Amino acid sequence: MDQQELLRILEAVRAGEVSSAKAIERLKHLPFEDLGFAKVDHHRALRQGFAEVILGQGKTPGQVAEIVRAMVRRKDGRQNILVTRANPKIFAAVKRVNRTAKMHPLSGVITIERSREILGKGTILVVSAGTSDIPVAEEALLTAQMMGNPVEHLYDVGVAGIHRLLEHREKLTHARVIICVAGMEGALPSVVGGLVPVPVIAVPTSTGYGASFGGVAALLGMLNSCASNVTVVNIDNGFGAACVASCINRL
Amino acid sequence: MDQQELLRILEAVRAGEVSSAKAIERLKHLPFEDLGFAKVDHHRALRQGFAEVILGQGKTPGQVAEIVRAMVRRKDGRQNILVTRANPKIFAAVKRVNRTAKMHPLSGVITIERSREILGKGTILVVSAGTSDIPVAEEALLTAQMMGNPVEHLYDVGVAGIHRLLEHREKLTHARVIICVAGMEGALPSVVGGLVPVPVIAVPTSTGYGASFGGVAALLGMLNSCASNVTVVNIDNGFGAACVASCINRL
Amino acid sequence: MDQQELLRILEAVRAGEVSSAKAIERLKHLPFEDLGFAKVDHHRALRQGFAEVILGQGKTPGQVAEIVRAMVRRKDGRQNILVTRANPKIFAAVKRVNRTAKMHPLSGVITIERSREILGKGTILVVSAGTSDIPVAEEALLTAQMMGNPVEHLYDVGVAGIHRLLEHREKLTHARVIICVAGMEGALPSVVGGLVPVPVIAVPTSTGYGASFGGVAALLGMLNSCASNVTVVNIDNGFGAACVASCINRL
Amino acid sequence: MDQQELLRILEAVRAGEVSSAKAIERLKHLPFEDLGFAKVDHHRALRQGFAEVILGQGKTPGQVAEIVRAMVRRKDGRQNILVTRANPKIFAAVKRVNRTAKMHPLSGVITIERSREILGKGTILVVSAGTSDIPVAEEALLTAQMMGNPVEHLYDVGVAGIHRLLEHREKLTHARVIICVAGMEGALPSVVGGLVPVPVIAVPTSTGYGASFGGVAALLGMLNSCASNVTVVNIDNGFGAACVASCINRL
Amino acid sequence: MDQQELLRILEAVRAGEVSSAKAIERLKHLPFEDLGFAKVDHHRALRQGFAEVILGQGKTPGQVAEIVRAMVRRKDGRQNILVTRANPKIFAAVKRVNRTAKMHPLSGVITIERSREILGKGTILVVSAGTSDIPVAEEALLTAQMMGNPVEHLYDVGVAGIHRLLEHREKLTHARVIICVAGMEGALPSVVGGLVPVPVIAVPTSTGYGASFGGVAALLGMLNSCASNVTVVNIDNGFGAACVASCINRL
Amino acid sequence: MDQQELLRILEAVRAGEVSSAKAIERLKHLPFEDLGFAKVDHHRALRQGFAEVILGQGKTPGQVAEIVRAMVRRKDGRQNILVTRANPKIFAAVKRVNRTAKMHPLSGVITIERSREILGKGTILVVSAGTSDIPVAEEALLTAQMMGNPVEHLYDVGVAGIHRLLEHREKLTHARVIICVAGMEGALPSVVGGLVPVPVIAVPTSTGYGASFGGVAALLGMLNSCASNVTVVNIDNGFGAACVASCINRL
Amino acid sequence: MDQQELLRILEAVRAGEVSSAKAIERLKHLPFEDLGFAKVDHHRALRQGFAEVILGQGKTPGQVAEIVRAMVRRKDGRQNILVTRANPKIFAAVKRVNRTAKMHPLSGVITIERSREILGKGTILVVSAGTSDIPVAEEALLTAQMMGNPVEHLYDVGVAGIHRLLEHREKLTHARVIICVAGMEGALPSVVGGLVPVPVIAVPTSTGYGASFGGVAALLGMLNSCASNVTVVNIDNGFGAACVASCINRL
Amino acid sequence: MDQQELLRILEAVRAGEVSSAKAIERLKHLPFEDLGFAKVDHHRALRQGFAEVILGQGKTPGQVAEIVRAMVRRKDGRQNILVTRANPKIFAAVKRVNRTAKMHPLSGVITIERSREILGKGTILVVSAGTSDIPVAEEALLTAQMMGNPVEHLYDVGVAGIHRLLEHREKLTHARVIICVAGMEGALPSVVGGLVPVPVIAVPTSTGYGASFGGVAALLGMLNSCASNVTVVNIDNGFGAACVASCINRL
Repeated sequence: MDQQELLRILEAVRAGEVSSAKAIERLKHLPFEDLGFAKVDHHRALRQGFAEVILGQGKTPGQVAEIVRAMVRRKDGRQNILVTRANPKIFAAVKRVNRTAKMHPLSGVITIERSREILGKGTILVVSAGTSDIPVAEEALLTAQMMGNPVEHLYDVGVAGIHRLLEHREKLTHARVIICVAGMEGALPSVVGGLVPVPVIAVPTSTGYGASFGGVAALLGMLNSCASNVTVVNIDNGFGAACVASCINRL
Repeated sequence: MDQQELLRILEAVRAGEVSSAKAIERLKHLPFEDLGFAKVDHHRALRQGFAEVILGQGKTPGQVAEIVRAMVRRKDGRQNILVTRANPKIFAAVKRVNRTAKMHPLSGVITIERSREILGKGTILVVSAGTSDIPVAEEALLTAQMMGNPVEHLYDVGVAGIHRLLEHREKLTHARVIICVAGMEGALPSVVGGLVPVPVIAVPTSTGYGASFGGVAALLGMLNSCASNVTVVNIDNGFGAACVASCINRL
Repeated sequence: MDQQELLRILEAVRAGEVSSAKAIERLKHLPFEDLGFAKVDHHRALRQGFAEVILGQGKTPGQVAEIVRAMVRRKDGRQNILVTRANPKIFAAVKRVNRTAKMHPLSGVITIERSREILGKGTILVVSAGTSDIPVAEEALLTAQMMGNPVEHLYDVGVAGIHRLLEHREKLTHARVIICVAGMEGALPSVVGGLVPVPVIAVPTSTGYGASFGGVAALLGMLNSCASNVTVVNIDNGFGAACVASCINRL
Repeated sequence: MDQQELLRILEAVRAGEVSSAKAIERLKHLPFEDLGFAKVDHHRALRQGFAEVILGQGKTPGQVAEIVRAMVRRKDGRQNILVTRANPKIFAAVKRVNRTAKMHPLSGVITIERSREILGKGTILVVSAGTSDIPVAEEALLTAQMMGNPVEHLYDVGVAGIHRLLEHREKLTHARVIICVAGMEGALPSVVGGLVPVPVIAVPTSTGYGASFGGVAALLGMLNSCASNVTVVNIDNGFGAACVASCINRL
Repeated sequence: MDQQELLRILEAVRAGEVSSAKAIERLKHLPFEDLGFAKVDHHRALRQGFAEVILGQGKTPGQVAEIVRAMVRRKDGRQNILVTRANPKIFAAVKRVNRTAKMHPLSGVITIERSREILGKGTILVVSAGTSDIPVAEEALLTAQMMGNPVEHLYDVGVAGIHRLLEHREKLTHARVIICVAGMEGALPSVVGGLVPVPVIAVPTSTGYGASFGGVAALLGMLNSCASNVTVVNIDNGFGAACVASCINRL
Repeated sequence: MDQQELLRILEAVRAGEVSSAKAIERLKHLPFEDLGFAKVDHHRALRQGFAEVILGQGKTPGQVAEIVRAMVRRKDGRQNILVTRANPKIFAAVKRVNRTAKMHPLSGVITIERSREILGKGTILVVSAGTSDIPVAEEALLTAQMMGNPVEHLYDVGVAGIHRLLEHREKLTHARVIICVAGMEGALPSVVGGLVPVPVIAVPTSTGYGASFGGVAALLGMLNSCASNVTVVNIDNGFGAACVASCINRL
Repeated sequence: MDQQELLRILEAVRAGEVSSAKAIERLKHLPFEDLGFAKVDHHRALRQGFAEVILGQGKTPGQVAEIVRAMVRRKDGRQNILVTRANPKIFAAVKRVNRTAKMHPLSGVITIERSREILGKGTILVVSAGTSDIPVAEEALLTAQMMGNPVEHLYDVGVAGIHRLLEHREKLTHARVIICVAGMEGALPSVVGGLVPVPVIAVPTSTGYGASFGGVAALLGMLNSCASNVTVVNIDNGFGAACVASCINRL
Repeated sequence: MDQQELLRILEAVRAGEVSSAKAIERLKHLPFEDLGFAKVDHHRALRQGFAEVILGQGKTPGQVAEIVRAMVRRKDGRQNILVTRANPKIFAAVKRVNRTAKMHPLSGVITIERSREILGKGTILVVSAGTSDIPVAEEALLTAQMMGNPVEHLYDVGVAGIHRLLEHREKLTHARVIICVAGMEGALPSVVGGLVPVPVIAVPTSTGYGASFGGVAALLGMLNSCASNVTVVNIDNGFGAACVASCINRL
């Protein structure tokens, strides 16, 4: 129910077709957000505005395929479709539903591109430190892309070989938002943050062993970053970083 | 040295006044950022562009006053001046240097307003959960303001009284960036994030006792936020949240 | 031995059939709770009063089936039987013992319903945040039901879409005890606790990844809840939450 | 605004005094809870129904006294007033406002008793392990009492002298809700929980040193309790335990 | 009440002076341990058998002095008296009650020696690593001594100067029980345990800084000791180690 | 080389057959412990005195069998042989080497009994809380037995059913050393320690889930035990507890 | 681009072939390290100087083989090749590329020796505590060897049998750098550090169970070492320790 | 006793003045290290070779002064004297003993320079990130200097302003050992390690707040450094880092 419906109720009251008491009763049982007082569900709106997303993890291939089928059927939906943390079996099932589905094996992301509309105002650059951070970086990259952002990436520029990063300052300077993916000591966002004036979304990865504690070392490093334009999302949360970056890039 | 200086060296080479070898030697010893190849120190630039900031903690009143005096003297500097984590003694010393200095006792922030230029494109809204979160919220608010952003605030809207937050949805919807300050379970950013389409910078506070572990509970809550537009900064880092928010608000 | 038996011993003493020394000797070796001084084993009584429970985890299908057979055989036992954390093999074995056994695959709970007697005074409502919290929620729901409580549930009402929860306030208000199951930031109990005057039993789940640390983030969030009617049980302990809720619901 | 006000608006619509569009506009800006659809603020109601509570910690004596004065002035308020985590200076200030204020130095609680109405249906028993747990136990006891519950207590019954606890089983059996306060290994709630059929609210205390980690050892012990009628609140949260217990005791 | 009293009741029953029902009633209300079925309170017995102990920490000088006065007054008590974690003010108060009281400032232990009876069968040796471990070592030493054990000590024999320890192997070999006090890496018990066939009670101390985490490093080191005759007590718990050692030394 | 050998060297010096310089040279290269100054390797002596032990975990069936063969061959060795943390494949291999080998599947212990000599002075009692603690309890029991101790056990006496423990006080009182195995909240050693005057070796187990953190909750509970005769070994270390208990039981 | 190229640009400027502005433009886009101002990439140089290293973990056999093939092909490369954390399948693939490849199954290291040139100035000694530490020790040993260092090793010299270590003091004294590998309590480096005047690189291993927390106990022990010549690398990082040791041994 | 003494005993044996049995007896009771078999106490030697060091923390001014007096008196001692973690009172007391004592207030180090002999083969460079790391850096610098090393320092070169570090590559390249002091995210050693081929000793500092956890974030960052020439010492352990660096610099 939108404002139209509220209007109809009030008009019915005005016309004497419905008593005030009955109107109150009907108002009481309406879904809250439908009152039109405020678009409460910005959240869903937000996601829909960007892309349709399915978390593959913990779902059967059949379930994922079913959801994709429903999305594809909807006539008004032309957003891109994204399945994160999928596996080959899920992909096979999705493929049967939609021939254009593409699997990205490094990150386990499936994309169904239905729109190339650019919604972001600038480029989102995904920077990552080591080769083992690439799966998370790719998840971020594909998510940002499917959400309508021009994207670029810069991989394997860890801080122990600082010149490799410095060689690409140009790329860094062109970005409107930077997603910085790093495991181990998680130092990359601090260095990158110091080189650019734009927001840097830091993503710790669970890369490493021993005292990396599954990404905790990187997470703490990033939270304590000495660069003042760095914020942090959860370990391995490439998807989340891209959501925030998209949301900033639309401002 | 700026590009002009590099130009001068090259011109001298061209004019035969300086040999190529000598030129190389001189280039070698120039400060890196001065080469003009790239404005490396965006970091400092970033801060200067916004405001002059002094961390009061760990400095003597005399030291802080001295730095403020130097800032005030500089002819070209018209940025606002901000001293964070100050105390009454520091304030007394700063006051002697500049009569317009103002102390904000809740947050321990000192402000010297020299410019009211608005640099941010929208409003930064600071939302906080409990009364004990206000010091951190105020630090964020004043920092954002001194950095040239229109600011608003919404305090005492904890999630256990959700209607208080919902009453102010209007305010939430007007913000371009939201800073969300909360201790204890740190649930506020998730709820706020679900109500708005703009980026939410979450600041955990060390409020609480026992299993709050000095803000760790709130920090973890925020890192695991189920709202996809939430990023996180360090515990009690109101200043940092405002830096990131400013940096987003200038995009 | 109950008070009758103690009486018999004392009478035998009185009658001179047993010497005082012998009586002491016999008293010494009686099981403590049998002295009738107090019903010490309220604990077992408590469980039996509710339902017969077997923890499937760590037992072989044969062992579980054997215990079920013993329970079913007992003439005086008409309580419901509950096997928690079971698997299909355990179910097959139990099924052979009792045809009415039902498997609930999401939660791994097996139920054998032998009584529909209602023992709780009101409704226990199980609320959960995300779809991945449903297994724990279902364990709580089935346990509460098998223990003789009217139950209702409200799933997928995470705090990032607060309106979905608010739409169902009616349901919340009807409950006498609420079990609130949530992973990630564990914020749901605080919001629910703020909406109702009844006790809320919070169950953190191990849902999530990275900094959720297997449910620790949710656990800490719940322990620091700003709602004053929230208590907490162990991570994933849907069974325990239902026990406490049942115990409250009988008061 | 209550339902009456909504009725008035609708009647005005009906009467043609207000257009439907204007009515929508007015409905939009009403405070949410005032719509009368649901009493959202059960939380505040809950507290008010019990007692007026002020957290002394972090407030100046003047601030606390001011709040107490406001509470005392209100004509319709006859609830008891409770100041938690207060100190002698706060007490002196409160005493000046209300002569009947009483300081309880062990727990730092100030009580102003204005009503002896009994609201709880049974007795709340506060059990504690060591002498150093008494401050937290007393906070729980006084809170429960001020909220209108008959209370009893049983102190210094640690598990290493189990007979002391067993001697008082009578007392345990009379309680409708038990609050169990313990530091160090936090084993008391398990033992107590095994002896009674009623809910046990466990409060870990920060008592101990070394590997007690400020109450974490006790907290973990309680969360892992092998008794199925135990739930847990935050470390040192005697107040919170009493709130939950009161809320259960009113059912 | 001891067995004699139980006997008296039974005899009264036998003699017909007391009815069986009345006897049951009386038995019900007797303190549990008094039934004589078992000396339940071995704990208190244990301590009393050894020494009277008062934990000074958290008590006022007056309180401690009062307890000491009561102990001194009792005619049948000739055990040594021990106050742990005391301070000069407590000592002054105790001194006024008993002139023979002695303060040991390193460990904050006060001793009142009233008996030199040797109750332990062999020597308890207290070994410590660094000079900063001596307070805890001294607490252990004095406790063991006051509990009637011959004691020796061997200080400043850290593992980084292994020869110092080896020079005193003779002393090690003479001990019946060894208490091993060490902070930092807590390696000493492993080395000592490898050199002797007797039990080694390891006491981690909160000595150190940074990654010693207040004794956690030492505690973990000791729990993982590769010597098979090592057990561990809580951080800084010199008193507890001496209790266990005494209890072993009496076997 | 024993003292005899040192004597021989000195005699050779005396006889002029060996120069002093050469003697020094030879003394330098002798194994340290062989100098006879002190039996340094008490550790190995200790173990050999008790039983031959092989840690099965991390060894192939072939390797274990080979070590057993070597042990069995040695003519002077009549100690019992113990393989801990073994599996059926290891057992099959050991069985081929020695027909009398026995597998204990709950604990994964293999025993080869070659001596029934009693070396301990009293009974070692192994007490455990829940059924899932039995594997660790059995490892302790078999180790103690193979090391020549009379052993008894008392299983399933958790603190939430305290009467079950109290019924067996007789057994508790007969033990000279008690090994107390418990997971979850680890409260059992405190209760047992309060009931007996003998040393209690506490073994936390990794039983439990969620906030039991693989035995950490139990470990912390035991380290903070309020009973003064409790010491602690590592999580799941039934073997180690039995070693310490044996070592105490020989005193 | 090396200095030659910079020279060419400057010469072109001098010759008037290139304008100063154009030169600046070209200088701007040159890779940083190529300016010849400084050999930035010492890191890569460092590694190449020592050996070619491939981390096998997380790579397919095909990928590893491909990299090895490329290394072998390069004409100027005569360094040894090292694959760490490999498995039999990787080895099979590498073997097909280079017949001289050798697998070291304990540590999972593959070596291809192409040079026996000694680059280190002294001997690197690898000392380890228990047999389960040998895989990490072997990784360190082989890495050090492949990097051109004379190596020795001393295994199974845990601190609970201190004489075994002392017997080999000679070996300890001959080393120029010592790598000390230990799990459990991690005490070995402290003892070794006390016996030698050379640097000791401590490597904690994830050996152990329960409170060893995957190597954390050993790590903390080493960080708190009371020997002043001990530094620490990450858990299980035998490779890293050998890198540092090599780097010291070349000084 | 040195080898001479052993020789005298053997000669006495040879001369028949001492029996073999008596010789054994005397050998037995000699201090171990005096046997001359090996200079066991390299540790002390190590320190003495460098400087005399007193840890001021935990000692009274009088105690420190007394130790200094003893050091100064010794005729053969010409090493520098170092007091770490001292305060003004300690300094006043030391000053009275030796007029040349110098206090370094930032680090709390007192130095008494008695020798300027250079013992290290190259320069030790101390690099630090922020101004709040300088106290620890200064402790390292002064320790290294007092131990006879040429030292340099490079302060305030945090990674968020990477150009500042790069400007000083020259200095980095001249060092033989680098001590790298950093708090917060602890990223500096990785960047520095990537720029130089020499060993880098990383010192985490307790600088920071919130999720820096007193230096833990920096410590973990350094342990996970992606540069292969980095090792780590304890938090704030500037002294220890300088010891290791000195020890390397003498090789």
